[in-house]
Amino acid sequence: MDSSVEPFKARRLYLLLRERIASGELPSGTRLPGEPGLAAEHGVSRMTVRRALDLLAEEGLLRRQPGSGTFVRETGMEQAVCADLADVFSHLKEMGRRTTVRLLQFGYVAPTEAVARALGLATAERAQRSVRIRLLEGAPFSWLTTHVPERIGQTYTEADLAATPLLSLLERSGIVPARARQTIGATLAGPDVAEALEVQIGAPLLSLVRVVEDDGGHGVEHLHALYRPDRFSFTMDLLRTGTPEARRWSPIPTAQAPARPAPAASSSPQHRKPPQ
Amino acid sequence: MDSSVEPFKARRLYLLLRERIASGELPSGTRLPGEPGLAAEHGVSRMTVRRALDLLAEEGLLRRQPGSGTFVRETGMEQAVCADLADVFSHLKEMGRRTTVRLLQFGYVAPTEAVARALGLATAERAQRSVRIRLLEGAPFSWLTTHVPERIGQTYTEADLAATPLLSLLERSGIVPARARQTIGATLAGPDVAEALEVQIGAPLLSLVRVVEDDGGHGVEHLHALYRPDRFSFTMDLLRTGTPEARRWSPIPTAQAPARPAPAASSSPQHRKPPQ
Repeated sequence: MDSSVEPFKARRLYLLLRERIASGELPSGTRLPGEPGLAAEHGVSRMTVRRALDLLAEEGLLRRQPGSGTFVRETGMEQAVCADLADVFSHLKEMGRRTTVRLLQFGYVAPTEAVARALGLATAERAQRSVRIRLLEGAPFSWLTTHVPERIGQTYTEADLAATPLLSLLERSGIVPARARQTIGATLAGPDVAEALEVQIGAPLLSLVRVVEDDGGHGVEHLHALYRPDRFSFTMDLLRTGTPEARRWSPIPTAQAPARPAPAASSSPQHRKPPQ
Repeated sequence: MDSSVEPFKARRLYLLLRERIASGELPSGTRLPGEPGLAAEHGVSRMTVRRALDLLAEEGLLRRQPGSGTFVRETGMEQAVCADLADVFSHLKEMGRRTTVRLLQFGYVAPTEAVARALGLATAERAQRSVRIRLLEGAPFSWLTTHVPERIGQTYTEADLAATPLLSLLERSGIVPARARQTIGATLAGPDVAEALEVQIGAPLLSLVRVVEDDGGHGVEHLHALYRPDRFSFTMDLLRTGTPEARRWSPIPTAQAPARPAPAASSSPQHRKPPQ
């Protein structure tokens, strides 16, 4: 076993080590354990360890110093964009960076039960479904699947959606978006998403589900978004408030968030659009 | 190739399909594509597909109906706990559920550069480091690594930390936690975390970094938390506010969040503790 390369174990180990470097858990200058140590820790062969380290070295994340070991390099890794939890767009604007959207799919479908329930659709009622990816300076960072009740979807065309934010199209049709609930989780990249977001199959992704309701409490948009965590993360500032007997944390909006957590220094204007 | 099982491809496919079932993307009753279709889509052998489906069927997530296909079952999958983004504890209390904490490691270390910077430590200043896991009704859902400047760490013992929330210990020592910044991302489970959280190596995890500062702007706690997304997710309610010319979304605290996004109905009391 120790002389064989196990390609999928090697890719898994590569992904795990890459994550630890990206997260700062293995900062630059860290000396990695030797190949036997890594092999034992991960239950793989030494050849597999070597293959994973080769991939990381090719990416410029590791530096091998003959005789002294393998070290994490000062990385050329991209810094993640941090977005205030209630907003992404205006954030990116503030940062003077430009995002673009590419519409991949547009059509009418029978939605899943979860989407139909969230939107309050009648049995057999269809939904306008679209898939878009969002890019920051040409680099894709999010995969967005939206569902809108068919009667609302009929008020815009594929060309409209390729050019205009969905929320603007909803407002154009007379809808008053009033509230939203969003839930944040994590998942793995499947084949289609991996290809579009330029990650490996099985790479970790942030996921967000947002359901938007109009002023009458009717569901008007269901968004399922997937984000590359190395290019995008959510950030949130909290203030300790309340009485000495009952202290609480209250969120405050972030004006500008660096890519890594750092001592927070500023309050900021009110929230804007939710993330897409 | 089509007659061989590729164990790591099989596990990867298992994890991907499990994610799609857990997320509701493949709701109960969905008929899966046939083995040849799945094999082509994922670039694996049919035997590998069969192995992945076997694992899902053993878990009770799939039902095979000879002659008609393989279907997603009404799952016995656990529902994720949703926590308000600014709070977890009081949330769980409201839900009448009990969490417990297990202290796995306690010691003094030279922190990573990222932690030292976040806490504003001097060169060579050490940190009190602990690793804990949090369980909900006996099921582990989070892995918590905390760093505290050594001079503060000296004010409590390992036994203290095993029994008392860290924030309470900080307050006992005269510290006034005043603000915090938290950042949410996604990552993969490495060997240690996978074992403790009872997931597969390479499973997706939500990650959170929170830096707490005292009233003088000094870093007093650095928390790195990892959450099982099938047992835990963050939720947030937003209200559409502002003038007709400049609409914005403003977050409102969630009183009670169901495991799946649903029409939000209630406002709620102010925020409490941040999540752990």
